[in-house]
Amino acid sequence: MRALHMVRASRPYGDSVRQAAQRAQHACIDRARALIALLALGLLVVLSMPGTARAEDGYDLWLRYRPLAQADAVRPHATQLVAPETTPTQSATRAELLRGLSGLLGTDLAVQPTATADGAIVVGTPASSPAIAALRLKTKDLGREGYLIRSARIDGHRATVIAANDDIGALYGAFHLLRLVQTAQSLDALDIREVPRTQLRMLNHWDNLNRHVERGYAGESIWDWHKLPDYLSPRYTDYARANASIGINATVLNNVNASAQQLTPMYIEKAAALANVLRPYGIRVFLSARFSAPVEIGGLKNADPLDPAVKQWWKDKADEIYKAIPDFGGFLVKANSEGQPGPQDYGRTHADGANMMADAVKPHGGKVIWRAFVYSHETPDDRAKQAWNEFVPLDGKFRDNVMVQVKNGAIDFQPREPFHPLFGAMPKTPLMMEFQITKEYLGFATHLAYLGPLFEETLRADTQVRGPGSTVAKVIDGSLHAGTLPKGAITGMAGVANIGSDRNWSGSHFDQANWYAYGRLAWNPYLSSRDIAQEWARMTFSSDDAVVQPIVGMMMGSREAVVDYMTPLGLHHLMGRSHHYGPGPWVEGGPRADWTSVYYHRASKDGIGFDRTTHGSGAVSQYAPPVAAQFDDVKKTPEEFLLWFHHVPWDYTTKSGRPLWGELVHRYSQGVDYVRGMRRTWDGLKGRVDDERHAQVATFLAIQEKEAQWWRDASIAYFQTFAQRPLPEGEAPPAHALDYYESLEFPFAPGNG
Amino acid sequence: MRALHMVRASRPYGDSVRQAAQRAQHACIDRARALIALLALGLLVVLSMPGTARAEDGYDLWLRYRPLAQADAVRPHATQLVAPETTPTQSATRAELLRGLSGLLGTDLAVQPTATADGAIVVGTPASSPAIAALRLKTKDLGREGYLIRSARIDGHRATVIAANDDIGALYGAFHLLRLVQTAQSLDALDIREVPRTQLRMLNHWDNLNRHVERGYAGESIWDWHKLPDYLSPRYTDYARANASIGINATVLNNVNASAQQLTPMYIEKAAALANVLRPYGIRVFLSARFSAPVEIGGLKNADPLDPAVKQWWKDKADEIYKAIPDFGGFLVKANSEGQPGPQDYGRTHADGANMMADAVKPHGGKVIWRAFVYSHETPDDRAKQAWNEFVPLDGKFRDNVMVQVKNGAIDFQPREPFHPLFGAMPKTPLMMEFQITKEYLGFATHLAYLGPLFEETLRADTQVRGPGSTVAKVIDGSLHAGTLPKGAITGMAGVANIGSDRNWSGSHFDQANWYAYGRLAWNPYLSSRDIAQEWARMTFSSDDAVVQPIVGMMMGSREAVVDYMTPLGLHHLMGRSHHYGPGPWVEGGPRADWTSVYYHRASKDGIGFDRTTHGSGAVSQYAPPVAAQFDDVKKTPEEFLLWFHHVPWDYTTKSGRPLWGELVHRYSQGVDYVRGMRRTWDGLKGRVDDERHAQVATFLAIQEKEAQWWRDASIAYFQTFAQRPLPEGEAPPAHALDYYESLEFPFAPGNG
Repeated sequence: MRALHMVRASRPYGDSVRQAAQRAQHACIDRARALIALLALGLLVVLSMPGTARAEDGYDLWLRYRPLAQADAVRPHATQLVAPETTPTQSATRAELLRGLSGLLGTDLAVQPTATADGAIVVGTPASSPAIAALRLKTKDLGREGYLIRSARIDGHRATVIAANDDIGALYGAFHLLRLVQTAQSLDALDIREVPRTQLRMLNHWDNLNRHVERGYAGESIWDWHKLPDYLSPRYTDYARANASIGINATVLNNVNASAQQLTPMYIEKAAALANVLRPYGIRVFLSARFSAPVEIGGLKNADPLDPAVKQWWKDKADEIYKAIPDFGGFLVKANSEGQPGPQDYGRTHADGANMMADAVKPHGGKVIWRAFVYSHETPDDRAKQAWNEFVPLDGKFRDNVMVQVKNGAIDFQPREPFHPLFGAMPKTPLMMEFQITKEYLGFATHLAYLGPLFEETLRADTQVRGPGSTVAKVIDGSLHAGTLPKGAITGMAGVANIGSDRNWSGSHFDQANWYAYGRLAWNPYLSSRDIAQEWARMTFSSDDAVVQPIVGMMMGSREAVVDYMTPLGLHHLMGRSHHYGPGPWVEGGPRADWTSVYYHRASKDGIGFDRTTHGSGAVSQYAPPVAAQFDDVKKTPEEFLLWFHHVPWDYTTKSGRPLWGELVHRYSQGVDYVRGMRRTWDGLKGRVDDERHAQVATFLAIQEKEAQWWRDASIAYFQTFAQRPLPEGEAPPAHALDYYESLEFPFAPGNG
Repeated sequence: MRALHMVRASRPYGDSVRQAAQRAQHACIDRARALIALLALGLLVVLSMPGTARAEDGYDLWLRYRPLAQADAVRPHATQLVAPETTPTQSATRAELLRGLSGLLGTDLAVQPTATADGAIVVGTPASSPAIAALRLKTKDLGREGYLIRSARIDGHRATVIAANDDIGALYGAFHLLRLVQTAQSLDALDIREVPRTQLRMLNHWDNLNRHVERGYAGESIWDWHKLPDYLSPRYTDYARANASIGINATVLNNVNASAQQLTPMYIEKAAALANVLRPYGIRVFLSARFSAPVEIGGLKNADPLDPAVKQWWKDKADEIYKAIPDFGGFLVKANSEGQPGPQDYGRTHADGANMMADAVKPHGGKVIWRAFVYSHETPDDRAKQAWNEFVPLDGKFRDNVMVQVKNGAIDFQPREPFHPLFGAMPKTPLMMEFQITKEYLGFATHLAYLGPLFEETLRADTQVRGPGSTVAKVIDGSLHAGTLPKGAITGMAGVANIGSDRNWSGSHFDQANWYAYGRLAWNPYLSSRDIAQEWARMTFSSDDAVVQPIVGMMMGSREAVVDYMTPLGLHHLMGRSHHYGPGPWVEGGPRADWTSVYYHRASKDGIGFDRTTHGSGAVSQYAPPVAAQFDDVKKTPEEFLLWFHHVPWDYTTKSGRPLWGELVHRYSQGVDYVRGMRRTWDGLKGRVDDERHAQVATFLAIQEKEAQWWRDASIAYFQTFAQRPLPEGEAPPAHALDYYESLEFPFAPGNG
């Protein structure tokens, strides 16, 4: 009502003229009144709807198309959309651009058959778009998934062109364009050419058919198997959108600790329904296969890979699956590891097993991804050596549609591990990287630990197998061994998903960044984790630098902080037994020595650390000679790997000048301090980040500080019993005695297998 | 832009005048333009925000405060709010009224210290509100939880008064007022007086500490134990709001198959954090207690209730809990039932066990709720008789703070059971009703089965123990045995919750109605389930009668349809083993006869049904003589209980004139037909119900039809092997042979213990 008042108040004219003016005004006012009332009502109605306060619950992820402060600069580049819509992928592309741009810019783009004005966005392939065909762009070497984004003139109008050879490339390009807008980059004079560096960019869901997620900290599985194939949750589509936006093109639906039931007709039908949802977004479905399935669901007596009946069973099973899912990706197999069945049960090799299954899917273009995370029933001298020992002799013995999937490090997704010695050691075998996105060993969902630097550190590590610069990234993208790999060998990366049915997908807002960073690095393993953090923070929280920079600052040091308060200086595998929650450096006994902590830290009165030098387990020798020589020498070993490779006396002088014991305590405290710093930084963002997300992150940081302190205190209390030295000056003693920490039990910690 | 164009187009004046008019117009236009632009931008911005398309995902439940078509009629009654805000409950009350009324009416209510205009809403107690004190209303007999809503004049202004003796009554009254608005009832001349008929209106969560929900079909537990006590999900508050809105005032956080861990200090602290969230909404926290906890977490040798050390342990434990949760409600105990430990393990009675725990909580005002759902290790002649046999002799032997919780029927939450013979049979013991809201035996979350009629049918059943009219409702509200119950005995009802972390809380939109109906009937067991359905449908879907009436129509027959396609004519317990999903009339063998189907249906060539007459198991004799006589006579037994009480030959003539076999098949088909009818009705509502919820319900109805058909076909195929008669004319044969149905396995069906 106040608005109308202001309009009425202006009557600045003489009498006769005034009447005319008044009439004019009234005519104007009547119309304006109607309009204003209408708009005000609309605004009121919309604003008053509960929930319109815009729950910032994180569901939108980084595809959070909220009004952009810099929208004015973008609008001239987004006046109309020329995009075909004759295939499902084309429809998805068009819908995403409309949704994104209208959300970000507050305008409705007109969809046009051709560009008729400046500012058109023209999307398509030479086949789907005459305008793009006419531009005769060099798209040949873009492959199926690459794309160009280019500023151009079409029919005399300024236009932004997204061109690809295939619909999926155009969809990726559309997401790229949206990212440019979301991160407030200029759309002038664009000349972008993107081709993914790896072919298979995959998520591994460790999701069981009962919806429990092994090592999942974000609620139960998003796959509602019971209601499939009939009910297709809208969430499946949003999952596909999020993955396509970062180029993920494959997903393994079920846990590597697989149930054979997954391969029964009922579950194949369910998987096919999911495949139908994911297909338009370029995502192919894979399944984890239990090696003994021919026995468990096939009625065979054994699962020997050389048994013709077993071979036939897998061929038939593959045929059955491909009938339901024509673009089925293939099988992921965890065999002869941690109790899973495998070819060694029949005296056969991993190659025998993998090749048998590879033959079954080969006629359909399928792949077999065989995990190198294996260790035998007998506890070895050093578990770190086993994968190398088992797999290097098999190099060159796998079918050309087999990939071997190798964890980033040789133990098991610790906060820090040196790169796995298999990288570079199998020049004839395509190796897939396996990263863990879910934070099994990094504080679960509540700890803020941005894993971009962890991924980057591994990818940039130099194997030196073909001289300096032989980075792990070059192994993964196939460039290092291009000459020796089988013809047509594919490349790829796998990430163990941190996705669950929690409203914000990942259990915490910041864990979304790990999914995002994984996808971006799978697309291009040479990206900088800091750049990715910048991108993500802008898309997820704000385009305001005063928000983005502190957030990126927090993120970039956060993983190092976890290393510090959990396992500094190369320590590893010191967590609570089985659930892996909280500190457990005292864990010993049980079925296997290499499932304990004491096996790994080897603390005694004399010192601490696992001697993997040539004088110890010899694991260093699995690396190329220059690397082996470096790790073999305690003085040359980077300090972050000190206790990984060396057993070091407590008074060993570290690079800081502090003796080892003092340095150890210092690192623990430093980790806790970093978390305190993150809390301060985050508190400073109150009011600049929406209240809902701010509150959850603030609470989680408080939990993280409490638990970081717990890790520090418990670890120090424990190791002090060996070091038998006082705490360095200024270091607070643990809050409790060691027996208190040892007494804590967490039988219901989430994510346990 | 089009708006501005319209304003500019009007220039109806001569030249000289025109200039003045134009100036005036321009002045007007400039202002109008600014305003319109601002408003349009606002609207656009708001509308363009993704998600502002107003995701109708069901999260809001029946507290869905969307703009009301009839808002004009209500606004004069809601111009200002006079409500105190000095206690948490008062704050919750004020916030809810502001949220609800602004959402429904599209206006912002001014909050005033006193009524200064017509249309004030005045809320409070004589203590909290001088205006209400001045009205000298008769609030005495409202108790703590009752309230008045009355149209009144305050300081010369028209006002609506919500008055109570206690803050919580005022909150309940506020929700009642909102319900009146939501259901578009007149606010003129209100004179409402509400007092709950039962004192304890409780949810039982069968939630485990690992977040698995036994018999839960809505995702995992909403209690995120791992992140408690630190992280308090906003969902906990919305849970409290929803419960308070229907008068639920107690909740048992954990499964009756309880873990002793729940009573450890760590979990008491977590429960206390939840209690703090729930307290302002009038909800008291109870815990399920494992009877053997003194052994498992207390280090005692036994849990004998007569052992002084055991007694002391429970006293100490109670003291510990009350220190953390001063208004802790007490313990719910499942003892000596389905493998749970209990007093009989030590040769003691249920009364011994209950009284020992009652003594422990008595000094703090706590209660013990002891479940009557017990059956011994030895399989009996008739499981239906056991609870009566065990508990009737104990009548009068319980402490006055013990309640015995009795399931609605004597078997286990079947789609239909006759009322439990314990109702009316323990005049000296307060009996709590236990209903199951979650649909363990009624098709899980996907089947539309409104349970209001089931609840109502039980509550209105006439036990006749004190002559006609001795309804179960009167047992529950204490009125039937007012003279014999212990002084100060409390009354109550428990509902096994259907709540989980699914976005829509209950797994499906229509299952929300069962939570709602349970709460309304717990408040007043004499309400009509149809009235409740009307209320709920209006609040949840639309205030448009053309939507509400078809929905209510679907709901009202839906439970009978489930009875028909699963277990018609008094059949019961014919579902798949352990997971209870799908038909399993052939289930036999295994550890206990009474865990099979054949035990219950007793089909043979001669007939079908469980003879519980005086010639059979004699279970009828547990009812009062007139009821017993009725059930004992096959001709007088209501047909819906025919095979519950009688073994009947296949050619027995039913009331329809059809022989039993024909009637059985007819009922099965009728159930399927009803679901088909619901699908048609629902299809007709497309466009009148938001797309998102419409689509999910439509898919679920399709699943329900498929599964109803499966139940019919499998049951007919099975029973035909006994009846050895052809299908009646016009009845389609089962789609598959019996062995197909028997071969189906569902190892991952949700909710299994």
